[in-house]
Amino acid sequence: MVILKVGGGKAINWEYIATDLKALQEDVIIVHGANAYASEIAEKLGVKETFIMSPSGHTSRYTDDQAMDVLTMTYAGLINKKIVSVLRQHGINALGMCGADGGVWMGKKKDAILSEENGKVKVIRDSLTGNVTSVNRDLIMLLVHHGYTPVITIPAVTPEGELINVDNDRAVAVMARDLAIQRIIILFEAPGFLADKGDDSSRVARMKISEINTYIQATDGRMRKKLLGIKEAFTFGVQEVCLGDGRKKHPIINTLEGKGTIIQ
Amino acid sequence: MVILKVGGGKAINWEYIATDLKALQEDVIIVHGANAYASEIAEKLGVKETFIMSPSGHTSRYTDDQAMDVLTMTYAGLINKKIVSVLRQHGINALGMCGADGGVWMGKKKDAILSEENGKVKVIRDSLTGNVTSVNRDLIMLLVHHGYTPVITIPAVTPEGELINVDNDRAVAVMARDLAIQRIIILFEAPGFLADKGDDSSRVARMKISEINTYIQATDGRMRKKLLGIKEAFTFGVQEVCLGDGRKKHPIINTLEGKGTIIQ
Repeated sequence: MVILKVGGGKAINWEYIATDLKALQEDVIIVHGANAYASEIAEKLGVKETFIMSPSGHTSRYTDDQAMDVLTMTYAGLINKKIVSVLRQHGINALGMCGADGGVWMGKKKDAILSEENGKVKVIRDSLTGNVTSVNRDLIMLLVHHGYTPVITIPAVTPEGELINVDNDRAVAVMARDLAIQRIIILFEAPGFLADKGDDSSRVARMKISEINTYIQATDGRMRKKLLGIKEAFTFGVQEVCLGDGRKKHPIINTLEGKGTIIQ
Repeated sequence: MVILKVGGGKAINWEYIATDLKALQEDVIIVHGANAYASEIAEKLGVKETFIMSPSGHTSRYTDDQAMDVLTMTYAGLINKKIVSVLRQHGINALGMCGADGGVWMGKKKDAILSEENGKVKVIRDSLTGNVTSVNRDLIMLLVHHGYTPVITIPAVTPEGELINVDNDRAVAVMARDLAIQRIIILFEAPGFLADKGDDSSRVARMKISEINTYIQATDGRMRKKLLGIKEAFTFGVQEVCLGDGRKKHPIINTLEGKGTIIQ
């Protein structure tokens, strides 16, 4: 079994992904983003997106009730069901769900987030953000054993039933741990991990997990988060993470063949 | 096993519904609307809602791609997950899905819809509307037997994987048929079926199914559709449909006790 994590950019081609998935001889659990669409819908709805920079340099979304509504409608509604539709068009028995459904992604809300603005540190207590702490293994296995392909996205849910925004990449790591999965495929809008962001020729074809800290230091933003999630996944027993281009034909096959970045 | 259908009005109180559900000694499949929220979001997004009046007097939503996006994000995203959250807060192991997920509501798209405007009949071919023709019984039973409460809404899906807008009330009828369910509870924003729309004192406490055609003739709009769905459900073997107020405390208990309308 393999986890396929697909980014939420608009250039991701789900037709190509579905074609490759249909050919893959392995059970797959899909996790997806919807970031670009959420930003667009937030803007149309007049909901201001606020991002928080922590003192340690992490950027995260400030998720108040309105922001949570936008995330829920975009990730768990619009994009999740569009993906299910494309996969079903290709004969894959896709079943979309968010982390709250059947408690598939159980999480803990953060009590407080530190935010640094102009050198001043603020404590934010009302953001609906947190981390996935465990996965409903039984539900995922039940679905997979009966021939369904789970397609999972945010929000996750607390034991008290509250919807929380979580980092998809870290959720993937916890899922790999709880399902004892050894390989993760990550597709996004780049040919692989780029040593020099924006320069496609700087693609790192192979990375040893022992080198990942060096790369984490050298990156920022979403890619930094992704690498942190990957690092966590390895501490949980994952053996291989393959990064590749979700925009081009045969995204999965090419990525598995090493045309992106393979981390071992 | 019972189907609980809940309307999509803003005055529906899911806290009350969850409290009653928790006390109910029976497996429940929930189907819900989100009509009022979809209209609000369509307006905010600047998506014009268009309704079609058929020559036989039925009103239906003209569902182009944009309208389908609004329905998907509102019904399958925002409202479905809010309901899942409230139910989980009350200790119910809710699992939200739309009709496309796992092919739970398989349907057929209408080739053409007739629309009458100012006495002229037009043929509309590009509306993404249709009917549920069968239900994935195995998936629903799998979930219910493992302790999950399915929470289902539009869109449904065609065998070719296309998302389609369907009438929830008729979907409930087909679900009752395919799951051999004998009782349906319907909650909405009224004390029961009102002989005189808008006059709460005209509540019909009991209706014989043999009388339903008379009432269908006398109603219009959403209530007419609801009655047509109920009539269909009875032809499929349903024995009892209980209508009641989703706004008041103990909505399910009161409805089952006959404080709304019982159709037999």
